[in-house]
Amino acid sequence: MKEQFYTYIQELQDRITSKLQEIDGVAEFREDLWERPEGGGGRTRVIENGKVFEKGGVNISAVHGPLPKSMQAYFGVGEVDFFACGLSLVLHPVNPMVPTVHANWRYFEMYDKEGSIVDQWFGGGQDLTPYYLFEKDARHFHQVCKAACDRHDPEFYGEYKARCDGYFWNTHRNEARGVGGLFFDYLRKIEGRNMQDWYDFVTDVGNSFLDAYVPIVLERKDLKYSREERDWQEIRRGRYVEFNLVHDKGTLFGLRTNGRIESILMSLPPKVQWRYDYHPKPGSREEALLNVLKKPVEWV
Amino acid sequence: MKEQFYTYIQELQDRITSKLQEIDGVAEFREDLWERPEGGGGRTRVIENGKVFEKGGVNISAVHGPLPKSMQAYFGVGEVDFFACGLSLVLHPVNPMVPTVHANWRYFEMYDKEGSIVDQWFGGGQDLTPYYLFEKDARHFHQVCKAACDRHDPEFYGEYKARCDGYFWNTHRNEARGVGGLFFDYLRKIEGRNMQDWYDFVTDVGNSFLDAYVPIVLERKDLKYSREERDWQEIRRGRYVEFNLVHDKGTLFGLRTNGRIESILMSLPPKVQWRYDYHPKPGSREEALLNVLKKPVEWV
Repeated sequence: MKEQFYTYIQELQDRITSKLQEIDGVAEFREDLWERPEGGGGRTRVIENGKVFEKGGVNISAVHGPLPKSMQAYFGVGEVDFFACGLSLVLHPVNPMVPTVHANWRYFEMYDKEGSIVDQWFGGGQDLTPYYLFEKDARHFHQVCKAACDRHDPEFYGEYKARCDGYFWNTHRNEARGVGGLFFDYLRKIEGRNMQDWYDFVTDVGNSFLDAYVPIVLERKDLKYSREERDWQEIRRGRYVEFNLVHDKGTLFGLRTNGRIESILMSLPPKVQWRYDYHPKPGSREEALLNVLKKPVEWV
Repeated sequence: MKEQFYTYIQELQDRITSKLQEIDGVAEFREDLWERPEGGGGRTRVIENGKVFEKGGVNISAVHGPLPKSMQAYFGVGEVDFFACGLSLVLHPVNPMVPTVHANWRYFEMYDKEGSIVDQWFGGGQDLTPYYLFEKDARHFHQVCKAACDRHDPEFYGEYKARCDGYFWNTHRNEARGVGGLFFDYLRKIEGRNMQDWYDFVTDVGNSFLDAYVPIVLERKDLKYSREERDWQEIRRGRYVEFNLVHDKGTLFGLRTNGRIESILMSLPPKVQWRYDYHPKPGSREEALLNVLKKPVEWV
């Protein structure tokens, strides 16, 4: 399974970066191969200063070895060996009318002393963070997520959509990071569903990513915007930074386990503003976004 | 003691904001009074878009009531009442040749059920974060810190300077936030030193703040700088954000105990950049700064 899934994310990284580069038309992804001293490594691909994408990364990694101490406590296990691989992406567009997007699909294995698998699971998801709300875009994104889920179980979309809303919540601001999407974790072998079934589900979701995001980019990337709208985007990007550095388990986990810092923090936006006690004008489009972020919306 | 120290920080806030406003010459501090639902409140003063100070806050607060659950665990005590007051300041200058500065001086009391004080202590410090290194400035800042310490104990400067270097360390980058200063905490009654002695020490340090920082501002505020130097300042400000959101105990404590968010996050810089895997040119002034941040320097 680990080879099957690692082959899949390599191929998916190629597919995604090649499509995004085609859309951008100006900037190209820069590739950095890196090795983890304790075992494994990754292939980081970053795009910067594009016509459409101001900054973005589409990274894969496959790491293995003894499970770090901090993860033993996190998972409630002793000294075991592990393998983990996944694809992580974040895209920060230039145009404030185009939403930021994040996605991650990952697979994890733990072994006993004889090297037999004692636990294995999939996790992941994707979520959309608009600066200006186009309800049509949020509906489209969720519809594609739901269609991928529905091909596997009619219960999945409702469950994983709700988990996404719960996870991407800036508790200290009491607001959502964006309009959500899917979030799932610990997808293990259960009665009636084996690891291959979960593989089929997770890869179906991964395959749907470009369908979920690209039409939104194409429809919004050439819209006109003002300096004030760009300021609003940079202020909202500050909330993205706050979520990633204060709350995001993946980021904090990476920072505390000696991960490759530049690959982890590629998720941070290129230009960000913090203003003291900033509130948009009543009745403005900026305020309309904030109202939608106050509580989760059923988009489909 | 609590009234004595709260009176002191009110007066110190007036003195500091009035001096900074005079130096800026354009922007004025905006004052926000706020109340904490569980008891107490604060007086936040923020300056933005000045000629010298792009963003800064000089805040005081005095809060009391039952010690929040998360703090009980942190201090290893049960259900007790507490009182805490302090002054916190962060200044982000426009000109990249002027360093950012942070300071905090605070006093804490805990009570038994009869309302008698069972524990009390002072804490605080100040540190300097340059974007371009002028060794003269770092030496001056430390000399003023040392003089204030030396008036009370010849051991203090060495001890509190080392603690500052240890605290303001971005572990995930393996570099210092800046060139340090002083950091002290849990200054309790001990043999030969009562709370009034600690009060005298902490207020002496507080009184020295303007002497430590203002001459640096006056000497550097009118230096010419380029767009590239300003970019470097914004990139380095990203490290400041990373420290405050990932490592700073005061910030995380505030975010997790329902503090006033805008007063806590006034410390975040106004404009910030994150570039992927950015390294300054070999031999440049930017690289010279990084070299100094690799390990603590004895400035005096």
